[in-house]
Amino acid sequence: MKLFWTPASPFVRKVMVVAIELGLDRRIEIYPTYWPHEWGSRTIAFDPAFISANPVGRIPALMTEEGVALVESDLICEYLQTQVSTPTLHPPVGASRWQSMRLLGIADGSLEAMIARRAELLREPVEQSSGFIAKQRDRIGRCFDCLEQECDALEGGLTLAQITAGIACGYMDFRYPSDQWRIARPRLGDWYKRFAERDSMKRTAPSETPQRSEAC
Amino acid sequence: MKLFWTPASPFVRKVMVVAIELGLDRRIEIYPTYWPHEWGSRTIAFDPAFISANPVGRIPALMTEEGVALVESDLICEYLQTQVSTPTLHPPVGASRWQSMRLLGIADGSLEAMIARRAELLREPVEQSSGFIAKQRDRIGRCFDCLEQECDALEGGLTLAQITAGIACGYMDFRYPSDQWRIARPRLGDWYKRFAERDSMKRTAPSETPQRSEAC
Repeated sequence: MKLFWTPASPFVRKVMVVAIELGLDRRIEIYPTYWPHEWGSRTIAFDPAFISANPVGRIPALMTEEGVALVESDLICEYLQTQVSTPTLHPPVGASRWQSMRLLGIADGSLEAMIARRAELLREPVEQSSGFIAKQRDRIGRCFDCLEQECDALEGGLTLAQITAGIACGYMDFRYPSDQWRIARPRLGDWYKRFAERDSMKRTAPSETPQRSEAC
Repeated sequence: MKLFWTPASPFVRKVMVVAIELGLDRRIEIYPTYWPHEWGSRTIAFDPAFISANPVGRIPALMTEEGVALVESDLICEYLQTQVSTPTLHPPVGASRWQSMRLLGIADGSLEAMIARRAELLREPVEQSSGFIAKQRDRIGRCFDCLEQECDALEGGLTLAQITAGIACGYMDFRYPSDQWRIARPRLGDWYKRFAERDSMKRTAPSETPQRSEAC
């Protein structure tokens, strides 16, 4: 398998954490992609192999061993689960499954807001909207308040909801530390402190995306 | 079940089409939501029941009969499939399943771009970015080119990928008819012409979102 990748993307990190947790990471070849800061506000020049794999123009994208290019991190994670004998990243059918799926959707929504906020902050100042930035910050805050309130549903066996929530906490520390998300959310803070100790999380800590290939 | 709804949202439409196709629509109570045009660029005043169900602040959200509020249309559609005896909206495991999932992700990506473009066009003119609008238009164009090229994978039994692609075509006609997406994509145009004849599509044709409750 081949994964179109950067070290900063939380959605790429989700795929990497899942791959490590399922023992699939050695079967995945990393294909770095480069993102000039203009990515947020215009069409950039894409690597032809990447944009052919994913016309949406977003990472991650995964080329399967059968040659199908998958896009969207949750669909990629679903595919990875079919590559192991016992899929394990969702609770079995029943109420706990859907409570977990609820938190997966909310954690994903918070990540999308963090990316939208990032894109806005990369615009030319004259084209930035303080209202839009506040909208995304408010959205993130509401999602984190919900994760705090429903934190019990992040306990138990490893789930994609836990992984996504953990990556959301980590991305806040990476991009928006001044939000100090832990202050009003002590339970989520404690939960994340434990979750961040997983080997899969330590091995995928985010770092800045190179704006172009160093070979250029 | 209770669905937080508007008549304009393509992601709400996806849930409604799936519900109709699975014979579940009579079990779903419609809960209208109202969106002042400022939704794109600031935090608006939300209905408390809605924002409690979905702190992301987006529609659709579905309150299940068990009282779990699900967010994200694909997760909601997955839940709906568990409410019928034979889930049918993905091809069986194998290559065709993942080709279908690929097109689902790409059709979803095109819809997200249409919504981002809409939000941008609702900003104050001084805060609009022509580059951002072009970026979303280019993204939609690439996704539709891909659907044209891989149109064969939209044939066969009904799938969530077909439903999402059909709704994407319909939303382009609703919001961006001047793009004339059919011109360079005759196969997709023919496919959509047939798909749009489904009763579920006819019953869910988009119309403008009321900006506030008429009772206000």
